[in-house]
Amino acid sequence: MAEEKKIPYKIYLEENEMPQAWYNVRADMKNKPAPLLNPGTHQPMTAEELGGVFCEELVQQELDNDTRYIEIPQEIRDFYKMYRPSPLVRAYCLEEKLQTPAKIYYKFEGNNTSGSHKLNSAIAQAYYAKKQGLKGVTTETGAGQWGTALSMACAYLGLDCKVYMVKVSYEQKPFRREVMRTYGASVVPSPSDTTAVGRKILAEHPGTTGSLGCAISEAVEVAVSNPGYRYVLGSVLNQVLLHQSVIGLETKIALDKYNIKPDMIIGCAGGGSNLGGLISPFMGEKLRGEADYEIVAVEPASCPSFTRGVYAYDFCDTGMVCPLAKMYTLGSDFIPAPNHAGGLRYHGMSPILSQLYADGLMKAVAVPQTAVFEAAEEFARVEGILPAPESSHAIKVALDEAKRCRETGEEKTIVFGLTGTGYFDMVAYEKFHDGKMDDYIPTDEELAAFRARLPQVD
Amino acid sequence: MAEEKKIPYKIYLEENEMPQAWYNVRADMKNKPAPLLNPGTHQPMTAEELGGVFCEELVQQELDNDTRYIEIPQEIRDFYKMYRPSPLVRAYCLEEKLQTPAKIYYKFEGNNTSGSHKLNSAIAQAYYAKKQGLKGVTTETGAGQWGTALSMACAYLGLDCKVYMVKVSYEQKPFRREVMRTYGASVVPSPSDTTAVGRKILAEHPGTTGSLGCAISEAVEVAVSNPGYRYVLGSVLNQVLLHQSVIGLETKIALDKYNIKPDMIIGCAGGGSNLGGLISPFMGEKLRGEADYEIVAVEPASCPSFTRGVYAYDFCDTGMVCPLAKMYTLGSDFIPAPNHAGGLRYHGMSPILSQLYADGLMKAVAVPQTAVFEAAEEFARVEGILPAPESSHAIKVALDEAKRCRETGEEKTIVFGLTGTGYFDMVAYEKFHDGKMDDYIPTDEELAAFRARLPQVD
Repeated sequence: MAEEKKIPYKIYLEENEMPQAWYNVRADMKNKPAPLLNPGTHQPMTAEELGGVFCEELVQQELDNDTRYIEIPQEIRDFYKMYRPSPLVRAYCLEEKLQTPAKIYYKFEGNNTSGSHKLNSAIAQAYYAKKQGLKGVTTETGAGQWGTALSMACAYLGLDCKVYMVKVSYEQKPFRREVMRTYGASVVPSPSDTTAVGRKILAEHPGTTGSLGCAISEAVEVAVSNPGYRYVLGSVLNQVLLHQSVIGLETKIALDKYNIKPDMIIGCAGGGSNLGGLISPFMGEKLRGEADYEIVAVEPASCPSFTRGVYAYDFCDTGMVCPLAKMYTLGSDFIPAPNHAGGLRYHGMSPILSQLYADGLMKAVAVPQTAVFEAAEEFARVEGILPAPESSHAIKVALDEAKRCRETGEEKTIVFGLTGTGYFDMVAYEKFHDGKMDDYIPTDEELAAFRARLPQVD
Repeated sequence: MAEEKKIPYKIYLEENEMPQAWYNVRADMKNKPAPLLNPGTHQPMTAEELGGVFCEELVQQELDNDTRYIEIPQEIRDFYKMYRPSPLVRAYCLEEKLQTPAKIYYKFEGNNTSGSHKLNSAIAQAYYAKKQGLKGVTTETGAGQWGTALSMACAYLGLDCKVYMVKVSYEQKPFRREVMRTYGASVVPSPSDTTAVGRKILAEHPGTTGSLGCAISEAVEVAVSNPGYRYVLGSVLNQVLLHQSVIGLETKIALDKYNIKPDMIIGCAGGGSNLGGLISPFMGEKLRGEADYEIVAVEPASCPSFTRGVYAYDFCDTGMVCPLAKMYTLGSDFIPAPNHAGGLRYHGMSPILSQLYADGLMKAVAVPQTAVFEAAEEFARVEGILPAPESSHAIKVALDEAKRCRETGEEKTIVFGLTGTGYFDMVAYEKFHDGKMDDYIPTDEELAAFRARLPQVD
């Protein structure tokens, strides 16, 4: 047996160790994710149809279920070098504090101004938009990280950027707008009266705090009705999981460098961008029968797509203007109770992850909000980093597992994704400190009502 | 000539390359910084006198003008490994954008939750307080980074932490309080009615927005009147510059690794903690005649201690309860016009830096606020990082110099300190975007009036 190398607190890859290609997990999936369907005909969306909404090269990536590795263009690799590699951190302080025999690692994606992993796909999507000669892009943002990331990428490349921000986040995070403005983006709270779909939603649900689903509808409408614009999305899509595979690839390279084999990999899951990216190469090994890992998705109990949703075709947006996707969903008009993890408020889940979950290749758990913030604070005080509420869902489950190992004595190796920082979430932390956190969990009756409105697809 | 190695975008030291001792620049100064004086007797403060306010071991460090290297205790080095080394970034993107032949590097200290370099001294001071068996510490904070840093260090070590926060920052940065609360600290806006000196200042200046000088007085009063407490300070003091030398030491090791010799080193200067830390080892070489560097301090035009102050003994605080320090000062009751660089609003300057400046070993420039934010935004859009207003003072001068090199063709190597991030400064950025920035510069008459009230020391 090789002598174990001393493992540093933080593993940073050298530039020449950084991934040169994204990994497309679909290539190794026996059961491919179900195709997007045209909402009118219920036939698989063609590249031509998708091209009206998305950039050409991204459409190719969206539809490509076969190419295992897709080269990262040099321009994107150079941009990655500006804020990557992200560190893989050995949580020595946390292990010591918990007195656990478990070995805890986290891949920390928060060391950039977007505050999360979102920049990995934002720069890729903006790059292809620029390459196609577009004027600009439109998008939605929930927690604000994706909007910020896209603003940064667009500022760098000189593209116009229009962001529809879920109203509840716009109000809870007043300063996010200002960051996006610093990067030259225009930001509109959604639903708004700037689009037909926004006006319709406002008329039907006056006083709504919005949802990712609403904001997507608005952003898509603006993209398809303005020449030189396309829509870009920060999660759910296959292309996004492809770009985010850089997280998992770096993690795997760093672990391999020190001969570390994880037993359990944990990630928070909203639309699936972080989780899908983090687990991709590990899932690939699992699919190819080369290794086995326990993979855990963590979602908020207030928006439990995996654990209480159904696997069915549904609209990706509230306005029903987007293609249908087969995914674990709560129904496209589901609007969760106010939950401060804005990035986890989406009604559906990545089709890739949905298929993997349906095939029993990963687990999912739902956790209530107050418990998540307790874990966040416990983590912050020991590891220094103030985590985003989204990321803290993964922290909660990692801490629980490490504490369980303390009882059993298991020397389990746990890796979790720490997707970002909570600097713009202090309203949420304040509510937590004041004991005013909302832990509302939807009833079975409520979920059944939303489910009854799913589209009927043969 | 040795072949130039390819320089990565970010240079991270390996753990075994990290400094094991702080560097005490006083050991190499021919003209030592003037001693702190007892405000009553005007005699140099003894260790015993200082021990009533500061921790014992920190008093030793404060008074030690001779020991060149002071070992960093293992516990602190382990804590440093949690968030250090900080990257030395080669600003390739900025160079490209500016089309300058200058080579630009910045040492980025913002990748931790305090958002700045302040954690480097906070953990050291908290460590010695803990070692001495104290219950807790008190301090002041301006921009909030120091208070956050100290809260983090105290949470880690299990010490109580009371923070007096300059009222204008408390109001401009509502969420900073919440971060400190997450780390278990209590935060009071200063001046407050919780101390005698606070009540006095409020009576004399009703409606004052506060200053670091006021907040220091309050924190010192609480420390000396509560058994088991001592006061700690985030800047100005010799001990702080000692701890912050870790910034410069890491920078030097990283540069040496790639055979890079800087021509110019730039840092923002409020009380001098960052600048003093960054330049220490370079200044040491300069003092020993081993190398020469152009060293530039950048301060806000609204609070121009170096460029328009006098070098004289003055009180460190508004309440005049602290020892007298010989430094470049605007007068201890000087309260600058609202300036969003809360960390640069101090009326005085580190005695070490003051002596070096008086000896002609460094330069200083003052820059107006709007120009600083213009530079901040220009930098953010190219290098990704949203800088703190304080740090942006250094950016402004670095950009000016790089643009000058574009004209002259000089391939100058510029290193500047990027002390932190501006995530909690979005009120300031909003004012900038709205064109409502205050560029008030004190008149000569105003400065003369404050100067007239300096204490008379023979």
